[in-house]
Order: sequence, then C-alpha cells, then structure tokens
Amino acid sequence: MAKELTTREENYSQWYNDLVIKADLAENSAVRGSMVIKPYGYAIWEKMQAALDTMFKETGHQNAYFPLFIPKSFFSKEASHVEGFAKECAVVTHYRLKNDGKGGVIVDEDAKLEEELIVRPTSEAIIWDTYRKWIQSYRDLPLLINQWANVVRWEMRTRLFLRTSEFLWQEGHTAHSTKDEAIKEAELILDIYGKFAEEWIGVPVLKGIKSPNERFAGANETYCIEALMQDGKALQCGTSHFLGQNFAKAFDVKYLTKENKLEYVWATSWGVSTRLMGALVMAHSDDSGLVLPPKLAPIQVVIVPIYRKPEQLEAIREKVDGITKELKTKNISVKFDDRDTYKPGYKFAEWELKGVPIRLAIGPRDLENGTIEIARRDTLEKEVLQMADIAEKIDHLLVKIQDNIYQKALAFRDENTFYADTWDEFKDRVEKGGFVLAHWDETPETEVKIKDETKASIRLIPIDGKQEEGKCIFSGAPSKQRVVFARAY
Amino acid sequence: MAKELTTREENYSQWYNDLVIKADLAENSAVRGSMVIKPYGYAIWEKMQAALDTMFKETGHQNAYFPLFIPKSFFSKEASHVEGFAKECAVVTHYRLKNDGKGGVIVDEDAKLEEELIVRPTSEAIIWDTYRKWIQSYRDLPLLINQWANVVRWEMRTRLFLRTSEFLWQEGHTAHSTKDEAIKEAELILDIYGKFAEEWIGVPVLKGIKSPNERFAGANETYCIEALMQDGKALQCGTSHFLGQNFAKAFDVKYLTKENKLEYVWATSWGVSTRLMGALVMAHSDDSGLVLPPKLAPIQVVIVPIYRKPEQLEAIREKVDGITKELKTKNISVKFDDRDTYKPGYKFAEWELKGVPIRLAIGPRDLENGTIEIARRDTLEKEVLQMADIAEKIDHLLVKIQDNIYQKALAFRDENTFYADTWDEFKDRVEKGGFVLAHWDETPETEVKIKDETKASIRLIPIDGKQEEGKCIFSGAPSKQRVVFARAY
Repeated sequence: MAKELTTREENYSQWYNDLVIKADLAENSAVRGSMVIKPYGYAIWEKMQAALDTMFKETGHQNAYFPLFIPKSFFSKEASHVEGFAKECAVVTHYRLKNDGKGGVIVDEDAKLEEELIVRPTSEAIIWDTYRKWIQSYRDLPLLINQWANVVRWEMRTRLFLRTSEFLWQEGHTAHSTKDEAIKEAELILDIYGKFAEEWIGVPVLKGIKSPNERFAGANETYCIEALMQDGKALQCGTSHFLGQNFAKAFDVKYLTKENKLEYVWATSWGVSTRLMGALVMAHSDDSGLVLPPKLAPIQVVIVPIYRKPEQLEAIREKVDGITKELKTKNISVKFDDRDTYKPGYKFAEWELKGVPIRLAIGPRDLENGTIEIARRDTLEKEVLQMADIAEKIDHLLVKIQDNIYQKALAFRDENTFYADTWDEFKDRVEKGGFVLAHWDETPETEVKIKDETKASIRLIPIDGKQEEGKCIFSGAPSKQRVVFARAY
Repeated sequence: MAKELTTREENYSQWYNDLVIKADLAENSAVRGSMVIKPYGYAIWEKMQAALDTMFKETGHQNAYFPLFIPKSFFSKEASHVEGFAKECAVVTHYRLKNDGKGGVIVDEDAKLEEELIVRPTSEAIIWDTYRKWIQSYRDLPLLINQWANVVRWEMRTRLFLRTSEFLWQEGHTAHSTKDEAIKEAELILDIYGKFAEEWIGVPVLKGIKSPNERFAGANETYCIEALMQDGKALQCGTSHFLGQNFAKAFDVKYLTKENKLEYVWATSWGVSTRLMGALVMAHSDDSGLVLPPKLAPIQVVIVPIYRKPEQLEAIREKVDGITKELKTKNISVKFDDRDTYKPGYKFAEWELKGVPIRLAIGPRDLENGTIEIARRDTLEKEVLQMADIAEKIDHLLVKIQDNIYQKALAFRDENTFYADTWDEFKDRVEKGGFVLAHWDETPETEVKIKDETKASIRLIPIDGKQEEGKCIFSGAPSKQRVVFARAY
C-alpha cells in the first residue's frame, strides 16, 4: 500500500512523524509550530478528556474558564514565574487591522494596546488574580477548579503532539487553607495521572519529584510521571505542582480563618496535555502502524467483508448487522468497512495503520460454516472463531489486549532500567537508552554538568525511594538515594 | 439576603448583569472585554455542549482542532470575508518578552514576526487552507467537521455572555460535491439549532434567512434562529451559512468528480456560542433570580433540611440519603444542602437565585407524617406531598417544568409579535418592543434607513413565509412577503 512507514530501526524520529501523519492523527499547519489535530486524532483526545474529566469530578473538582489573554504586568508579580514563563510567548500588541488599499490588510497603528497582552502559556497569573476576589474566608476553601484550554509557548523546534507552539491541555488550580491539604491535593492528582497513564493509555509510569532545576517556575515542589518510549528516551507525561503560598503572596490572596485571623492560602496547579497523544503513539506502535489501547480507540472493532458478488455482500451485511447490534449493547464501537472502492488487503493495511484493536473478516465460506476470522492488532495474530457468543469473546479480547499492551510496555521498561555506579558505566548506559538509576550529590551544578556531558537529565527523584548510602557518579560526593536519569523528549 | 437583584422593571439591563454575577455564572476579568466563566455557569455550558455535540455526531459530524492563529495574509483571500472579519482582531506581532532589568518584562523588539498572526475571529480561512490538502476526489466528500474553540473579536462595548471579546463556541465547516447537498447541510444544522433552543433551552425561535446586509461575510446565504427576550428585544441565537464556492475558490479547493472532472467544492459553516447562556438567562429568569430549564440545570433538585437539633438533622439525612439514591437511578442530579453555617431562609433564597428547578424541604414533622415540601422554581408554587413514589413524582415534575418554561416563553413571544402596515404603526410598535412583521421593498437602502430611524433591524426573512401582496412600510414600493423586524442585542 502507498502509505509505507519508515521503520523504527531505520529512523525512530521519522517513523513517529510518518505515523502521526499517515494514521491521520495530526499534521503541521500553515502557522509555524501549530498543528491541526485531525478527526481521528481528536477522537482519541476526546476519549482522554472524558476519562480524565470524570476522574477530576469524582474527586470534587469543577470546570471553569479563564481568559486567553493575560496582561503583561501580571507576569512580573511572581519572581520565579516571570523567569520561567514570560519569555517565549505570543504577544498581542494591536487590536485592529485596516485595508491597505490594495485588497490586503495591514495592522492599524492607531489601534495599539496601552499594555500588551500575552497569550496564556499557563494560567496561574490570571487565575490567582481572580481568586483574590473569590476567596474571603475558610468557607470558600478548598477551591478545586480545572480548565480545559489551549495555551501557547513559542517553540523554535516543534514536533507533532510532543512540542508545538499551541497545544491543548487541562490545567487545575486549587486553593487550600493548609499546607498539608495542598500537598495532599498535588499527590492526589499525581495518582490520578498515574492511574490514567497506566489504565487507559497502557503506559507504565514512574512517579517522583523533580530536582529544583527542573521544577515548575513558581512551585515549591513539582511532582511528575515519567514514561519510557521505545527508543529508550523518557517522556514527561504530566506534572502536579505544590505552589506553597507563592502565588497567594504575589496576588495578595488571603482568607479569614475560623479563628478570625488573615492568612495566605496554599496552592497547587497541575496539567496534562495533547503530549499524551505522543506518549500513546510512541509507547505501543510498531512498523505497521498505530497500536491503540482499546479503552482509547475511537473504533474498537472493524469488520471487513470478503466477497466477489453483490449478493454475497448483502448476505454478509445481514450477519454483520446482528454482530454490530450485539457489540453496541456492550458499548463496543464498531465500524463495518463496506467501501467498494478498496480491496480487503488495502483495508487490512489501513486499519492496521490506524491501530484498530480487533479486525474481523467475514466471507461466504464463513457464513456457511458459522465462523469469522479475528485478528488482534497488538500481536498481529489471526484466528478463526465460531460465531456463537462472538460479542462476549470480543469483549473479553479487548480487555486482554488492553492488559497485554500494558504488560508489554512494562516488560520493555523493566528491561531498559539500569543501575550505574561509576561514571563510565553511567555514560555507557545513557548512550544505549533507558532509565538509569544512579547516585547524585543533590547539587544543581552537578546536575547541569552531567546533562552537558551526556544529554541525560534527572527525570525524577523517586517518592519513597530506597534509602542507601552511595557516591555521586559524577562528583563522588556522598548520596543517600538513587535518582532516575534519562535522555528525554 | 444580601444578594438583592435590581428588578426587571427598574432596569432590565442592570437586572441581567446583576443576575449573571450574583448567580455565579460569570464575571468581568482583569482583561478588558474578556469574561471569567465561573463553575456554575460553566456547568451549564458543558451541558449545552454535550447535547449539541451528540446531535452533531448523530448526523455524521466529527470534531477536530485547527490553530488559534491565522496568518494575516489569509484574510485577504476571500474578498467579502476580509471586509467583514479582518477588522477588530487581536494581532500578535512578537513572540518573546525579555527582562527590563527592573523586575518586570518588556517586549523583545528582536522577536518581531515577519508576518503578523491574527487570533481567530472565526476559522474559515485557516480551515479552507487545510481542506485544500484533504480534498482530492469525490471520495473525500462530504467532509463534515466541527470544532469547539475560543475565538476573539475585539469589542468596545461588551456584556457578559452577549458580547465579549473572547468567547467560546463551536464552528462547523463542511465541504460538499454539490450545491444542493451544501444547502441541505446548512438547513439541517438550522433545524438542529432550532431543536436545541426549543427543547433544551426552552426558548421558542423563529427560523429564516438574513437580508444581504446582515449576511455573514463570505456567505451566499445566512440562515438563523432568533428568539425574543423579556424586554422585547431579539437575540440571534445561531447562524448557519451556505458559503457557495467562495472559500473553495479563494483557497483553490477542487475535487475530481466521478466523471474525472475538476470542480470547486461547495461549503457551509455554522456556529453557536456562549451567547446562548445569555438567551437562557434572559428568556426565563425573574426578579428572584435564574429560572433554569431542568435539562440544562447543573443541580435539578436541592434538598434543604429544617431542624433545630443535630439529632434531627441526622434523622433527616437518613431519609434524604434514600431519596437521593432513588433520584440518581433516574439520572436526576441532586444536592443536599446541609451547611450548618446558613439558615433555611438564606438557602431558599440562594437556590432561587441560582434557578434550581425543584427545591425540597424536610423537617421533623415531615418525617413523622411521611411528607415533604416541594417548591417549583418556575411558578414559585409550594406543595406538601406524600413521600411515597417521590422520585417518580419529581421526575414527572421536571418534565412538566421544562415544558412550562417553554410554553410561557412561547406565549410571551406570541403576545409580542405584531403586524404593522403603516410607518407610524411600525415606529410605534418597534418602540414598544417585540417582533414586528412588515413589508419591505427588498433594498438594502431602505433597510439601512429603517434602522437609522427606529434602531430596528430585519431579524430574518421567514422560510416558507406566507406570500402576500403588500407595500413597503417605509418606501411604499410593492412587496411579496413580510419580514421580521425588531430591535436586537
């Protein structure tokens, strides 16, 4: 078929780009750095949104919507936030165009804004400016709010889903009366993210905290989940920040305690983005195309008729209608690919490319024998089954596939997780890819030097990691716990 | 209670603003013209989205996502589109900020874009530039795509939900092989919008087409739904455009027909926005607060306990738990307001303000008698009911309330729809408010003059309107059909 992919071995990065485009997930747009998310890709994102949104609401969060634009001066209010965020941003300076007299338009210089507006790279500033009005007393707390939105961070080198100037995400912003409660919230969200990554995307993740260097600008602590891709590189899949009282102080958000005292509130923020689409693609797919976890597949079962004559198609269609009805009662999404413009072989390849978990093929002989051919996308195995109880068999198989995909990714991660105790060993391991657990002296200087020399960064410091005496692989200084290094996206 | 509203009679416009803010739907933000949609308001919007999204998907549409930014030059490609849209827009000119050395940030003049980017006011231009790549042959058609997004149209005079610089909406963009099919699509969507407005928001709407003056910039025909608000002003609630081949020609989008000929494709676009929230508020609410249609109410039933002693509350709670469970099996959303910091009277007023369709009150005597007090928000009527089958009674009542709200709005519209046959009669009627059906000579000049003198615009030309000979109320020239005039939001 025409849509041949580059293989992973040939060029992993090219394979990824080919796959995203050829499987109709997304493509580059006419606007540098911005992508178009195509219907098939967006349908997966919608399923991710629905699952996450349910988890947020079950834990007491509500959705709201805050402005796209943030006054420039707001970014100066939190000192480290301005360092981290108010840099590569899209800046709105004018609010009107006018005709240029030649059929085109030019910016109207008379319509210059007094204060420039920044297209939100993240919304802490505008939200905390709003929370000042919403929070007066302990009765207003906790405030547990999430927003689904687009954000813009100007990027010079972009890659579909992984790094784009505009991307879609959710950002939670919560306010609490105590430090403990805020930390618990940040940890609760980390658990939700971990659960979602593992149970829905089928990607095992490590949980931990970031080193100070890698912390969110304005956070006291950044919690994260990290996954390993098939090329041995790590992908940060979500972060949850304990913000202390930094934003409350910057935006003067105080509350009256039960004891009638004014105190600054405590905060968290947390987000996952369309980057998760990149994780989903890179963790499971193969040289034939996408491998989608059944829980997130827009089409879970595709049925391809094998026939020569129109009356054969009609006989097959009748059978398929029955199967489809049964599958739908089990909430299984199914597509009957009865296009007469393509041959079965072409269709097989197309649905493999698109990662549909189960493909059924049915022909005249199957009708006679009461059988159907079933093919699994994850293993590419085929089997001829008796038609009886077919919906139940498929339902079980979807659960099995979801689990198999996860187990395979977990085995891969286990095989690619290493310990390194010397600098040479470390460099060697990092070069080969995977997570490398090694001792570090806890100084930012060492962290930077290791990254400069090996391109490996500290992905996270494991939560509840084993305490053991050791020596920093770079400086030799004493250390009490291994941290996780990897080259990363 | 503290949250007293201005009455409608006193000042309708102030009543609306008060209500939106005090019922916690939305508020003005620190960014001029942009609003914050608060959790309670956003929960209603989410219900609107879910209902519309289902209707779109049932009719074969898919969601996708296109970039927020549009290169300036794209706006010059469709001649009338540039006139209509490339004016009051937010313009991004730079992509970086830098430190000003004093703790603040300034725009980095070295990071000026070669071509300015426009924050989308609507997405025809970027989408049709993309469709050129997606459409090659008749096999690729129809292309039925919708996007949920934020858009920005710089507005000098803004009002919460009704007119804000940034707003949320859905925009459908479809491509077809024939003119007929495209027109049918535009009409199908008009029907969906009408059905949604009437069956969900409970607002009766007139359907029709816009006069050329009021058409969407770039459309051959604009279909619309118009509703009447309680102050006698019209509110445009949704539009569906037949775009002819205008955008296909502007962006060079052709397809190969079955007969192997290259033809331009036919297009539609259509949208409804958070403006519908304004329609919902203004159509039904009263001087006590919101009146929400049950189908869109985030909380459909609120239960307020009446008690003096803690043990009474516990006995009530036990009973309420049972009711809540029963209601949930019927998918009715219910809130038990057991806050001990407020008295029942305060709670009653608060839930009236927030428009919860049904309020239940239950006290110790009710427990003894097996009764419960039920209050309808729409009629403010109270009744004491036997507890038996309470969930079923409530379920029926919700349906009844949904219908009653619609019937009330329909009766109001009927009482405020008039015929005018002379200029004096017309001016008089328009002044009093309501829809005025009158003859018009079909010239844009007359339309403009009528608007200048009376502030009334042609809201729509009814589809399948009665054909009758008449004379234009302004020019006296002959006319074959009455059109609908009104002052409008």
